[in-house]
Amino acid sequence: MPDSTPAGSLTLRDVAAALDRLYPPESAADWDRVGLVTGDLDQPVRRILFALDPTLAVIDEARDWGADLVVTHHPLLLRGVHSVATTSAKGASVTSLVVSDIALYVAHTNADVADPGVSSVLADALGLTAQRPLTRIGPYAAGRVGELGAPQSLAEFADAVAAALPPTAGGIRVSGDPAGVVLTVAVMGGSGDDQFDAVRASGADVYVTADLRHHPVLEAREEARDGTPYLIDAGHWATESLWLAGAERQLLAALGEDPAAPTRVESRISSIRTEPWTFVVGANAAATAAASSGGVS
Amino acid sequence: MPDSTPAGSLTLRDVAAALDRLYPPESAADWDRVGLVTGDLDQPVRRILFALDPTLAVIDEARDWGADLVVTHHPLLLRGVHSVATTSAKGASVTSLVVSDIALYVAHTNADVADPGVSSVLADALGLTAQRPLTRIGPYAAGRVGELGAPQSLAEFADAVAAALPPTAGGIRVSGDPAGVVLTVAVMGGSGDDQFDAVRASGADVYVTADLRHHPVLEAREEARDGTPYLIDAGHWATESLWLAGAERQLLAALGEDPAAPTRVESRISSIRTEPWTFVVGANAAATAAASSGGVS
Amino acid sequence: MPDSTPAGSLTLRDVAAALDRLYPPESAADWDRVGLVTGDLDQPVRRILFALDPTLAVIDEARDWGADLVVTHHPLLLRGVHSVATTSAKGASVTSLVVSDIALYVAHTNADVADPGVSSVLADALGLTAQRPLTRIGPYAAGRVGELGAPQSLAEFADAVAAALPPTAGGIRVSGDPAGVVLTVAVMGGSGDDQFDAVRASGADVYVTADLRHHPVLEAREEARDGTPYLIDAGHWATESLWLAGAERQLLAALGEDPAAPTRVESRISSIRTEPWTFVVGANAAATAAASSGGVS
Amino acid sequence: MPDSTPAGSLTLRDVAAALDRLYPPESAADWDRVGLVTGDLDQPVRRILFALDPTLAVIDEARDWGADLVVTHHPLLLRGVHSVATTSAKGASVTSLVVSDIALYVAHTNADVADPGVSSVLADALGLTAQRPLTRIGPYAAGRVGELGAPQSLAEFADAVAAALPPTAGGIRVSGDPAGVVLTVAVMGGSGDDQFDAVRASGADVYVTADLRHHPVLEAREEARDGTPYLIDAGHWATESLWLAGAERQLLAALGEDPAAPTRVESRISSIRTEPWTFVVGANAAATAAASSGGVS
Amino acid sequence: MPDSTPAGSLTLRDVAAALDRLYPPESAADWDRVGLVTGDLDQPVRRILFALDPTLAVIDEARDWGADLVVTHHPLLLRGVHSVATTSAKGASVTSLVVSDIALYVAHTNADVADPGVSSVLADALGLTAQRPLTRIGPYAAGRVGELGAPQSLAEFADAVAAALPPTAGGIRVSGDPAGVVLTVAVMGGSGDDQFDAVRASGADVYVTADLRHHPVLEAREEARDGTPYLIDAGHWATESLWLAGAERQLLAALGEDPAAPTRVESRISSIRTEPWTFVVGANAAATAAASSGGVS
Amino acid sequence: MPDSTPAGSLTLRDVAAALDRLYPPESAADWDRVGLVTGDLDQPVRRILFALDPTLAVIDEARDWGADLVVTHHPLLLRGVHSVATTSAKGASVTSLVVSDIALYVAHTNADVADPGVSSVLADALGLTAQRPLTRIGPYAAGRVGELGAPQSLAEFADAVAAALPPTAGGIRVSGDPAGVVLTVAVMGGSGDDQFDAVRASGADVYVTADLRHHPVLEAREEARDGTPYLIDAGHWATESLWLAGAERQLLAALGEDPAAPTRVESRISSIRTEPWTFVVGANAAATAAASSGGVS
Repeated sequence: MPDSTPAGSLTLRDVAAALDRLYPPESAADWDRVGLVTGDLDQPVRRILFALDPTLAVIDEARDWGADLVVTHHPLLLRGVHSVATTSAKGASVTSLVVSDIALYVAHTNADVADPGVSSVLADALGLTAQRPLTRIGPYAAGRVGELGAPQSLAEFADAVAAALPPTAGGIRVSGDPAGVVLTVAVMGGSGDDQFDAVRASGADVYVTADLRHHPVLEAREEARDGTPYLIDAGHWATESLWLAGAERQLLAALGEDPAAPTRVESRISSIRTEPWTFVVGANAAATAAASSGGVS
Repeated sequence: MPDSTPAGSLTLRDVAAALDRLYPPESAADWDRVGLVTGDLDQPVRRILFALDPTLAVIDEARDWGADLVVTHHPLLLRGVHSVATTSAKGASVTSLVVSDIALYVAHTNADVADPGVSSVLADALGLTAQRPLTRIGPYAAGRVGELGAPQSLAEFADAVAAALPPTAGGIRVSGDPAGVVLTVAVMGGSGDDQFDAVRASGADVYVTADLRHHPVLEAREEARDGTPYLIDAGHWATESLWLAGAERQLLAALGEDPAAPTRVESRISSIRTEPWTFVVGANAAATAAASSGGVS
Repeated sequence: MPDSTPAGSLTLRDVAAALDRLYPPESAADWDRVGLVTGDLDQPVRRILFALDPTLAVIDEARDWGADLVVTHHPLLLRGVHSVATTSAKGASVTSLVVSDIALYVAHTNADVADPGVSSVLADALGLTAQRPLTRIGPYAAGRVGELGAPQSLAEFADAVAAALPPTAGGIRVSGDPAGVVLTVAVMGGSGDDQFDAVRASGADVYVTADLRHHPVLEAREEARDGTPYLIDAGHWATESLWLAGAERQLLAALGEDPAAPTRVESRISSIRTEPWTFVVGANAAATAAASSGGVS
Repeated sequence: MPDSTPAGSLTLRDVAAALDRLYPPESAADWDRVGLVTGDLDQPVRRILFALDPTLAVIDEARDWGADLVVTHHPLLLRGVHSVATTSAKGASVTSLVVSDIALYVAHTNADVADPGVSSVLADALGLTAQRPLTRIGPYAAGRVGELGAPQSLAEFADAVAAALPPTAGGIRVSGDPAGVVLTVAVMGGSGDDQFDAVRASGADVYVTADLRHHPVLEAREEARDGTPYLIDAGHWATESLWLAGAERQLLAALGEDPAAPTRVESRISSIRTEPWTFVVGANAAATAAASSGGVS
Repeated sequence: MPDSTPAGSLTLRDVAAALDRLYPPESAADWDRVGLVTGDLDQPVRRILFALDPTLAVIDEARDWGADLVVTHHPLLLRGVHSVATTSAKGASVTSLVVSDIALYVAHTNADVADPGVSSVLADALGLTAQRPLTRIGPYAAGRVGELGAPQSLAEFADAVAAALPPTAGGIRVSGDPAGVVLTVAVMGGSGDDQFDAVRASGADVYVTADLRHHPVLEAREEARDGTPYLIDAGHWATESLWLAGAERQLLAALGEDPAAPTRVESRISSIRTEPWTFVVGANAAATAAASSGGVS
Repeated sequence: MPDSTPAGSLTLRDVAAALDRLYPPESAADWDRVGLVTGDLDQPVRRILFALDPTLAVIDEARDWGADLVVTHHPLLLRGVHSVATTSAKGASVTSLVVSDIALYVAHTNADVADPGVSSVLADALGLTAQRPLTRIGPYAAGRVGELGAPQSLAEFADAVAAALPPTAGGIRVSGDPAGVVLTVAVMGGSGDDQFDAVRASGADVYVTADLRHHPVLEAREEARDGTPYLIDAGHWATESLWLAGAERQLLAALGEDPAAPTRVESRISSIRTEPWTFVVGANAAATAAASSGGVS
């Protein structure tokens, strides 16, 4: 199925090996499924697309652009599949990749714990200094804690987070007194609601993560007695997608290419936002309502 | 600890029995923990406060108002506790209730499957007709599916949801084409991300629930191939808090009181919004950014 | 990926529906994985290949013949896969099927319990009369017990089994006194070493199945105190492959075709023997050795 | 129950201690059950019978010979029993041993990992040089990999295996191209179908083990893409029974006896072949059929 | 091993079948292990010994008396054994039974739920009227609740229990006010500390059972707020051994013998008390101490 | 809820920290639940009551005496609770403690393994010399083995145990020959029936523990072939309550107080015996009966 590979060009074997060095598969969580999902090690790789999620739209973009390889953060087949018939979306995705000769490579929790990795890139984007791990998962540092240049109000910091991350429909949800002061910041890209104990132990004033649901957030806020650590849900896609640009640069360098002017491969970051939310209605309505009625919020 | 109960007044025994009839404990899920959490069956009950969550602020409100009983939807001790020392928020909550002689009664998944119950009240608020169950949990109907009076665009329907629910900071997040047409609506108050199969089987055009995270939503949207069923995350607190007013009326009636002018008990709904989000920054930023740059969203 | 389907021709949707009626998926064991593994319901089906196992050689045969659909007894993805990269044989098989636009449909334990099904076809081939189920798996009859026309020695019966089944490299292994008399026969196509209790309860004189290993066989022979039921391991492939011809005829009939002269589809049975053994050395060497030395066997 | 022990003679205590030193019980697998199964430590031991399996026929032989102790490789009570009534074969075996004052001692997985042990003896019998472990089970080497003196065809090697092992009814089943060349050989006495990963990692050209069933073998052959490692199922009894003679010599030596002329104990190896197969019909029939028909195999 | 059976005499097959009818094995608990433990169905049975526990002393008594069969309530091999070597007490027991040709038959939880059975015999011995089940285990009644002829003080009732049961070293331990009045009595022979909920639901004033440990008893007494149900630990052996005489009579009748003058079998109840306690020191010392010091108890 | 704390007085924070140093929570068993159960770290502590069990009577005593803190060995909430309503005894206990502003602190398995701790205090009380651990639980020594000054008969030793422990209703139950000689003694305060292997390995002549039930004791006696180790069940409360006085002294010292004349706190040991047995009837009746009848015991 792969074409014959021209002399001097890269194969999937070359590129997968470079990615394995950047994001060693053995550093992924036990439950995770990383590495090659589709493709043949002998197929040539001339175009590489980076995206957070291997959605059908991303795969269409890859095919339309002529990509040979898609590198994503999120696994396509985290749960094992017993069929790739097109009746399911997972099956349609696999079928579309295979029919189009597109390889898929996943770097997930192994990219989370890499350095640079998902959380360190997020911490950098927020300007955190004196960075240290938030927690350890096995032998690997996960999440980051660091310091802002100067104390800010929670409202100011939320604006800064919004400015640092790519814009989304969902925006950035904040729990805590807007006038409260924050200096120490904990971050965990993606879903971080299992790290509240570590956040409290870290002494952080605010925790930036995503996918926060009612009960865990409310319990964390109760445990904080309404004070610090405050919580910011900045969106799963937004907090993780920053990683893509760095990963692209690192891979090109690892392949011996000049990231600014590669010769054997082309690469780009997908233009598809895979945050699932399209629009929001009524955000901040409670405050508006409270302001106009003098009511309790 | 309870005072002696004046002749003719209600005891916790009376009120708990009435609540047990409205929300039979045996209809709760196996994993759930409902019924009496604090209190003594012989204590008098003259003031009853209804709230979605038994937070420390709600307990303070109850104490300040002189409530004898708090009725909440969410359990305080869903996970068993081995200590009620005030070093934990759960312990501080129990201690505060007990010291103030305030009983706590929880109606959770048994209120979800009641009729009227959490999802039927939500369906009513959205004006759904021809209501039928979304699914069954054991022998109990759970969630609702119904019809709008006339087809609407998803954008129009989202506005209608926002108008029907109490305002919140988080607002209402929508996934789907704003111009897409919806007529059949599925609803599940609170966290409903385990019901996507039932939603697809129901033929609903849109599903209103809450606590939707990146991966389940994205997978559901992929399975829908970007079409229907669309998804609306209307907030855990907002989708469930509508139930409180009806529960209050039903309890008063069950106690033989005229809800409009009860004589032996006073009741009210807590003024505390227990949605944990305080404010949102940058919602709809992606659309704004896209509009100003002509970029892909 | 599928071509446009000519009017009047069959689609995979039609054929899969017919197979689902012959072998209802809900009659498969809980742990089993049956039905469609690759393919798109809208793709046309003009050529159907039947085989016991979806090996790479079978897939090559299907591709070379231009098959649109392969129907096999054994699942390709009984254990869920997280990758279909060609680095694994399973991935290479899926990739080969998908690239060649070949659908794969599996009827496994649902074909075992069907009537006619794997065990009933085997019982028929051995000429058993008065057939009844050997056991039940849930509500379904599994295996068969029946009577020979007249008592035979175990040696004669073994020769008859060899004559009734397709020839293989492994041959037919027999445990028991060659001169012992058999009349009642139990059969279970494929691996049947979990049915010894049922065989004993059935009163069978001999049990024909496959994949028998040292310990289960020795324990069964000990339990039989060296008498009946005798055991015959007739090979997994040989005992199950008889089913293919009947399944082909039934499917054609179910599609409204004359099995002898179908018009809309062509079908055939794979010429690949997927029994893995290539040759045997030294079979019956013990008897030969014993004969020549007068030794104990 | 034991007779009084004459001065100077050995007791079961002495012999069991010697066996424990040769095959330390703590080196057995967690799930295994080794050591003394019947007997009294004070009973005298004058005659020791070695056998692979403690079958009823072996026990009869032991009783008829006047054995005081049977040493077997396979456990009698691997699964715990709740009854030794003679209604079950296991119960009849225990009862027969106890009534006849015969002790039973088992060395199973502790004999597999011993050196010399079951796999090393098999490797020696095949003439392998440069032997190294195939895998490790906990801290213990298991299986062996080694080199033939010179490359052979698979057919030649299979003949050599047949010549090196005791003859059996079942013979030696081979999967692979008879003309394929083999030099590096992996061996695992008894059931080895859980070691295919280790075999592939070892670089072996052929793997000699036993108890291979359809699915594991076919999957291993697919993974090998029909090439190496080839597979040989040489029979559970045949691959393990070679160990008995060495164990007998070692025990005598450990007891301070001259193996060639022991004075305090007599010993012998059972004449019973406990391979359960009596005869084979139709082996190599496929090749014969193919040869006569020119058909595909 | 069994002698030839004289015409007209009973075999173990006959006696075991009669016991199976009295105490159907399928009515035993899932975890239990009942029925034949040693013996051969063809052996003659002329002498039957009944005992609560198959201890070494009981087996010695059986051998000395020439018993062919021992019937016990408690299993010898509740946990499966992998060895019957005499190094363990269980192994020594099995070996002693087998060497002496003594069969062992166990009726345990199937005798508990029989009627008459262990708890009904105990209830009868205490003179309870209007007996009903204490609880149900699957479809079977377990334990008994009944009424005394007239109210008694707890002290009087304890004396009556002591008089009704065989004397033991351990005596009868009582928790509750000696002057408290009891009328309704719950009983469960043997270990009954998992039935406190059923006892409370039954309205019993006192619960007679055995094997009560500190924590379950103290929690039950706390739940009773020091009132009823009171608790009596009357000893495991004492509460169950009453059953033996009835079982003996029933078996003889089931064999067609006149229990008063059987002709084909002799039977008797073991003279060994298998309660493990030999003597007690300092019972009631607390009361004595309190009486002499005026202290709190 | 706590009063304001006078300068110089102790808070619960101080006392809990001292207890944590004496009995490190991390040395408790995984399944155990130790530390603070009720209370607020800022509340003043002037009166401390020590008791083995936090029963309702103990809590009443604490309230009547004006205790601020109760220190117990046994947990109140070993199993997590989902309600502290007074309908359950556990809920009533928590409610009573909280309403009365009484903190509860538990030192359980961490006190068992402390030195001095529950078992070492028991060993000291019995005058054992050359004390060593009976076993290890993780890294911690548990139980004690030691030597008596001179050999004693089991009857004499039982009398000595009775004299060394506080008197109880249940007394001290002994299994073994009264004339048997004991010199080496193993002890484990509270329930020790899971340590029989360690006791046998220790070479102890007698094992003093509590909560011994029929089956474990009988099996241990069988394993001992009626010889040593003998068993003494000296009562759960009696064997553990000796620890209280030492714990009181240690805590006072740890708080910098003179145990003989503390200035900032008062302390005492509860006068409530929480052994649940009130009286015993018929102890030693078997021996009496045997003596009067000449019968077998």
